[in-house]
Amino acid sequence: MTAYGDSVSGNCYKVQLVLHMLNIENQWQEMSIANGDTQAAVYLAKNPTGKIPLIEFDDGRVLTESNAIMGYLAASSMLIPTDEFCKAKMYQWLFFEQYSHEPYIAVARYIQLYLGLPDDRLAEYHSLHAKGYKALSVMEATLSQQPFLCGEQFSLADIALYAYTHVAHQGGFDLVEYPHIRGWLTRIAQIPGFVAMQA
Amino acid sequence: MTAYGDSVSGNCYKVQLVLHMLNIENQWQEMSIANGDTQAAVYLAKNPTGKIPLIEFDDGRVLTESNAIMGYLAASSMLIPTDEFCKAKMYQWLFFEQYSHEPYIAVARYIQLYLGLPDDRLAEYHSLHAKGYKALSVMEATLSQQPFLCGEQFSLADIALYAYTHVAHQGGFDLVEYPHIRGWLTRIAQIPGFVAMQA
Repeated sequence: MTAYGDSVSGNCYKVQLVLHMLNIENQWQEMSIANGDTQAAVYLAKNPTGKIPLIEFDDGRVLTESNAIMGYLAASSMLIPTDEFCKAKMYQWLFFEQYSHEPYIAVARYIQLYLGLPDDRLAEYHSLHAKGYKALSVMEATLSQQPFLCGEQFSLADIALYAYTHVAHQGGFDLVEYPHIRGWLTRIAQIPGFVAMQA
Repeated sequence: MTAYGDSVSGNCYKVQLVLHMLNIENQWQEMSIANGDTQAAVYLAKNPTGKIPLIEFDDGRVLTESNAIMGYLAASSMLIPTDEFCKAKMYQWLFFEQYSHEPYIAVARYIQLYLGLPDDRLAEYHSLHAKGYKALSVMEATLSQQPFLCGEQFSLADIALYAYTHVAHQGGFDLVEYPHIRGWLTRIAQIPGFVAMQA
């Protein structure tokens, strides 16, 4: 199995974390979004959305979307709750991450860290902050009552939301008023198999 | 079980379709986003994101995010492939829907149908079209090769993407160049248990 990813992307980092935590053999194919690797014809033939991460099997089958890849790699592992309702709550967090968290926190980080906060994106940058802080508040309320997003058990929900939350400061987010999120970030970094993002 | 939803919302319609197709007993609580029902304190106590749909069980547990709700309601049904890879491809489409389809096609529809295309959102409206058509092209390419998004089997992937694709014209999208999508829309409307959206 080959995993295609850009090591500075939080979405790709989710896949790296699952591969490490579950000790899954793979070949990592480093891609640079900045250099246009994901828009090259050879890659678009694999994934017409031009997005990474992607995993490719020896028989040519491919799977995209970071959270779907994690679900596949972690099937029948301790990273997915066995109880049907708990599993559904995990997916609730995964969809929350892609709809109400990543589009704000990851994009603010992209504008600040990679584009250098250009004037013509400043208004957008500030509007992303209001929505990003709302997402953080939802997480903070949950984490004030339990150690992980799905309760006592560390799961894919935590990996998905760790990916961009732990680098939210690179997008101008201040976590000083989110003590339970900060505690949760520390707990995740102590999970066996954890590796730091290479950004 | 009580299902909270706004019948003119595609995300809520997904849940209605699964409830009907699987003949699941439920109490439907109609909510009006336009009237502010989802921002009332009583609702925010159930879901701090202020979004619908939501399902609530008699013991007080709640589940949100349309695609997570569908996954829970349809567990062990024919709407979810049993093969692990096919199931992962289904989730790939569900995440594609929330990240690369709904934010463009549903929002363009909202701006046109509910806001009446105000001048100060025209630039945004046109930018949504380019991205929405890209999503439709990805679907068209897949549906040119197989009857449903996951292959031969109708699944939650089709329900999720049907929800806003079948009303894309209300957001100014023209499907004339997407014949395989149009054929797929017709096939879905013939699935047992199908009900039309009340929009």
